[in-house]
Amino acid sequence: MLPFEEYSRLIADAIANLQFSQSPASLFEPIRYTLDSGGKRLRPALLLSTYHALGGDPADVMNQALGLEMFHNFTLLHDDVMDNADVRRGQLTVHRRWNASQAILSGDAMLTIATQLIADCKPYALPRILSLFNDTAMGIYRGQQLDIDYEHRRDVTIDEYISMIRLKTSVLLGCACAMGATLADAHSSVCQAFYDYGVNLGLAFQLRDDYLDTYGDPLLFGKGIGGDIVNEKKTWLFITALQERGEQLSAILSQKLDPSDRVAAVIDIYDSINLGERCNDLIAQYLDKALVAIGRAGIAPEALQFFTDLAQRSASRTH
Amino acid sequence: MLPFEEYSRLIADAIANLQFSQSPASLFEPIRYTLDSGGKRLRPALLLSTYHALGGDPADVMNQALGLEMFHNFTLLHDDVMDNADVRRGQLTVHRRWNASQAILSGDAMLTIATQLIADCKPYALPRILSLFNDTAMGIYRGQQLDIDYEHRRDVTIDEYISMIRLKTSVLLGCACAMGATLADAHSSVCQAFYDYGVNLGLAFQLRDDYLDTYGDPLLFGKGIGGDIVNEKKTWLFITALQERGEQLSAILSQKLDPSDRVAAVIDIYDSINLGERCNDLIAQYLDKALVAIGRAGIAPEALQFFTDLAQRSASRTH
Repeated sequence: MLPFEEYSRLIADAIANLQFSQSPASLFEPIRYTLDSGGKRLRPALLLSTYHALGGDPADVMNQALGLEMFHNFTLLHDDVMDNADVRRGQLTVHRRWNASQAILSGDAMLTIATQLIADCKPYALPRILSLFNDTAMGIYRGQQLDIDYEHRRDVTIDEYISMIRLKTSVLLGCACAMGATLADAHSSVCQAFYDYGVNLGLAFQLRDDYLDTYGDPLLFGKGIGGDIVNEKKTWLFITALQERGEQLSAILSQKLDPSDRVAAVIDIYDSINLGERCNDLIAQYLDKALVAIGRAGIAPEALQFFTDLAQRSASRTH
Repeated sequence: MLPFEEYSRLIADAIANLQFSQSPASLFEPIRYTLDSGGKRLRPALLLSTYHALGGDPADVMNQALGLEMFHNFTLLHDDVMDNADVRRGQLTVHRRWNASQAILSGDAMLTIATQLIADCKPYALPRILSLFNDTAMGIYRGQQLDIDYEHRRDVTIDEYISMIRLKTSVLLGCACAMGATLADAHSSVCQAFYDYGVNLGLAFQLRDDYLDTYGDPLLFGKGIGGDIVNEKKTWLFITALQERGEQLSAILSQKLDPSDRVAAVIDIYDSINLGERCNDLIAQYLDKALVAIGRAGIAPEALQFFTDLAQRSASRTH
């Protein structure tokens, strides 16, 4: 196994070498712009490292890894149009830098290019790889739809929230691991173990994201703190506070406060019922599930250590 | 062979029977709304009739036919957002009936569902079928990009225009025919003959659309007449007039005229250089190419007659 950062670097190099030689250039410039904006490359790194852990050469599945990164960036590009977001990874979003039509069209092309890259595998594996990818994509759209639908509801339950982030974020991590295992011709029980690892890692990752948006160090986190509170986003913290301190929370939200005062007042409520610690306890539960799952994969100690470290770092990350 | 309308009816029945059983319903309602709005079902009918002409049972390739219709409707849905169109097939567009975010997200889901339907074929055919589909999809995005890019240019040539409509419209008709032939295990030369037939049929079809937008009978055509002129759309008629009567045309476009007066004045220019007849001559050339191509397919006389009739009707259609 290589250090995680080495897998990310392999992907960054492969992205830099991707050629978009078709015309017109105007279709492909926003794709290059999006891919070059960085990110953790977590999904393709999971695919490469899973394949590597099962005895394969990461270079053999680079196109599938690139396809997953392309797909992930496509979802971000279209989500940014839907959310009317101005900035992504420190640069203007595509629909701000160009326009919404360009973001829609270049995003559509990214989805098809992602499918082309993923389909460029051994023919006998293609039906399974493609089903896994398409089913995952459908899950992500369903999760995004739930996220939109929940904006207008005050009665979202914790179970509904977990189901939503499982679809919107986690299944793609599970897919990345399972795709690596499937490409390595692993037994279906091993593929399932890696899938479960990825999904639970994803839940821990997303809940940690919610935690950091409220309790993170702004210097480390990179995004402003409290954005979720200002936007009344239905995170685990917010939903739990609505359930346990609904009247207090509603009273604050109905006041005309400066954003920073509002954030401070909501955090006071969170602290009064110990939500920060309870959120990290929940993250630890999903971390445990991820570690139990990867324990079922039957991989060598060095590989087990790699995936254990990765999950622990994801669950306790500060940025 | 069946009459063309029978293939369309088979598809309409299959669309009516499509189940979207996943949650949330809010993601799938715009898909059902779009599919139920009708249309000629030309692309899936081409796939079914090609497969039938080569000895197969159309029912065996219904999912691929549905996939192409789903894909075509996805492109219309996203195009309508980009064009800010209000009405499609006599009903509100999805982004007007719902909103742009819903149109983007449900459209994305349609592209993935289209891929799922198309990929549901015999595994040994899957790599070729999927490459054909993905390459075609890329062509369509490139054509849409060229169409957008050409809006801001006055020096678009006829060759550029034909290349654009070939990508935006015709390659999908070629793909429909070639996919039917590939699924029927036809020799690559037969697949190519059907592809060329579909592409040239598509060019005739699109040029006839341009013709009818200016010279059609409004009662038969269904859309208002002169919309392309009002929007200064770079059609074959408009580009040719720009080349041959550029000063006159520019003079009229720079005047503040009522839309109907403007349309009449531009048609006067078109008529002065006989553009209506010349457009139909060009359509006849693409019709001829389509008929030459299908002649190379080596199909039975009854099937040859079917595809000949279909091309002739497409080239002389009034709606």
